[in-house]
This record gives sequence, structure tokens and C-alpha cells, in this order.
Amino acid sequence: MILVEIVTVLALLQYLTFAALVGRARVKCSVKAPATTGHEVFERFYRVQMNTLELLVVFLPAMWLAARYWSPALVSGIGAIYLVGRFMYFRAYTREPSTRSLGFNLSLGPALLLLLAALVGAVLAGLK
Amino acid sequence: MILVEIVTVLALLQYLTFAALVGRARVKCSVKAPATTGHEVFERFYRVQMNTLELLVVFLPAMWLAARYWSPALVSGIGAIYLVGRFMYFRAYTREPSTRSLGFNLSLGPALLLLLAALVGAVLAGLK
Amino acid sequence: MILVEIVTVLALLQYLTFAALVGRARVKCSVKAPATTGHEVFERFYRVQMNTLELLVVFLPAMWLAARYWSPALVSGIGAIYLVGRFMYFRAYTREPSTRSLGFNLSLGPALLLLLAALVGAVLAGLK
Repeated sequence: MILVEIVTVLALLQYLTFAALVGRARVKCSVKAPATTGHEVFERFYRVQMNTLELLVVFLPAMWLAARYWSPALVSGIGAIYLVGRFMYFRAYTREPSTRSLGFNLSLGPALLLLLAALVGAVLAGLK
Repeated sequence: MILVEIVTVLALLQYLTFAALVGRARVKCSVKAPATTGHEVFERFYRVQMNTLELLVVFLPAMWLAARYWSPALVSGIGAIYLVGRFMYFRAYTREPSTRSLGFNLSLGPALLLLLAALVGAVLAGLK
Repeated sequence: MILVEIVTVLALLQYLTFAALVGRARVKCSVKAPATTGHEVFERFYRVQMNTLELLVVFLPAMWLAARYWSPALVSGIGAIYLVGRFMYFRAYTREPSTRSLGFNLSLGPALLLLLAALVGAVLAGLK
């Protein structure tokens, strides 16, 4: 499970980096807490963090459940695609929100695939 | 633990469905990213997703911790009530926000019960 | 792992308390669902809950991963600092947002430390 653990830590560090960039954008764009709106650029960074949070709560349990039934090397490989997809999503969204689809799909896809793998694994185990 | 795993996957799929409906509402209500406000109907779908996210981070750890001490069949049965409650919450909130209490309570309740079960289980095990 | 479990339950209960206070602030400040803006005091409570959610998704996996490699007593002790830090953050933010740094750092710090401990543990185990 070491590879799955390392992908987990990297996904959390990536997410924390997005969160830190929101903090920086807050200062740069002069959006004073507790507001989360008021400047388009700040809002892009904020949406990247929030959307990553929204996906992370699916991705991590899906990866760990899938790893109960499938090869940890395969599962963490799919997890690595998620990491790359999220990075592309971040780059695209903060530059031009309308171009965020590819990175979005390359990170949602692996999460869905792992969730499906977990479901198939659990159902097959239940039928035994 | 197979039943607990299946309830976990179903809870994540339900949440992803709510998230997908936000995406659809975004287009229908013409709320352009990164905005998350501006149209009452969009905001209802968005709040359903966010509130489900807010509860999911409690529900999943609570269910898995409870399953360390109590029958997985019982624990996943309580988890199934959560799934039904969240569906009722979604239906009520998107039609008329003021009617969302029943579904809200039927999903918060199971999460709290599982959290309490986990706490009691851990404390009793610690006293041994 | 009992101590780690108990810190987990306490962190979830603390978060649910922050969420319940948002519900109360919603009524007191007359911010009708689905709105999440419109009254400064409500927004402070809402940001405390959201920021705690944002950190919780890092803290819990980090603590459990760290506990795979380091003493559960030490790991849960660091987790206890997180709990105190979050309480300070809540107190400061709801009174005067500009004073929230100390509580913020005292809860982000333990989460980062646990994440680093998990990473070091996993990498060292991988090198063996």
C-alpha cells in the first residue's frame, strides 16, 4: 500500500498548495475575509480549491477501496493520472476558466474509474 | 465489511450525482463559472451539493469507525438510512428549500448515531 | 489506535458544532437559505465551518497515515493540538477575523506535520 499512501500524501499536498494560492490571491486581489467574491481572479483560485476539495472526498476513499481488490500499483497509477489532471485543471482555470474541461475530465475520470473498480470488487467479493 | 464498502460507494455516487446536477443547473440558469450565485434555482442545487459534502466528511469516517466495534450489517443499515435521507433532502431542497428539514434530519441523524457508536466503542475498548 | 479514533471523533464533533453554529447564525442574522452571504457575522461563522472542512479533509487522512508509521500516542497528541488550534481559530474569527492567524497556524501546523510524518514513514518503508 506504500504507493497508494504516497499518492494520497501528494494529492493532499497538491490540494494544500491550491489552498495556499487562494490565500495569496486574497491578498493580491484585496478580497478581505470572510468574503469569497468580489474579484474575478480571486474567484478562479477559490473555485480551483473548492472543486479540488469536492473531488478529493471522492478520490481518496475510492482509491483506498479499489486498493482492497486490485493491484496497488495499478490503483496508484490511476491515482497519478488524477494528480496530473488536477494540475492541468488548475493551470487552465486560473488562466482561462473556459479551457478547464480537459484537466477536469483527466481528474474526474480516474476518480470515477477507481470508484467503479471498488464497486465491482466489493460486489464480486459479496457474491462469492 | 463488504456492505460498509458498498454503502460508501453509493454515498459517493449519490454525491457525484448531486455535483453533476449542479453542472447542469449552471448551464440551464446561465451562471457562468467561477460564479456560484446569481440564480435562485442554481443556488439550491449548489447548496445541496455543498451540504452533502459537508456531511459526507463526517458520515464516512463515522461509519468506518463504528464498523470497527459494531456489526457491519447494522452499521451499513444505518448508512442506508443516510442515503434515503439525502435523497429526500435533495428532492425537497430543489423544489422548496423550506421543506428540507425531514431529509436533512434523516441524513444528519444516522451520521450522528454512527459517530456516537464509534465514540462509545472506542471509549469502552480503551477502558478494558 | 483507540486514541487516534477518539481524536477523530472529537474533530468531527467539533466540526459539527461549528456547522450547527452556522445554522444558528443563519436564523439570527436572517440569512435565508440558499444564500451564504449578506450579513458579516453570518459569513464569519460560515467561513469557520468551511475552513474547518477544508482542513479536516487533510488532517484526518494525514493522522491515520502517520499512525501507520509512528506511535499512536504521539500522533494523537499532535492531533489534540489541532483540536485546540481549531477552537482558538473559531473564537478569534467570530470575534475579529483579523486575529485568526494563531489558531489557524496551530491547526494547520499539526496537519502539515502529520502529513510530513506520513510521507517520511511511507518513503522510508518503500526504501527498505
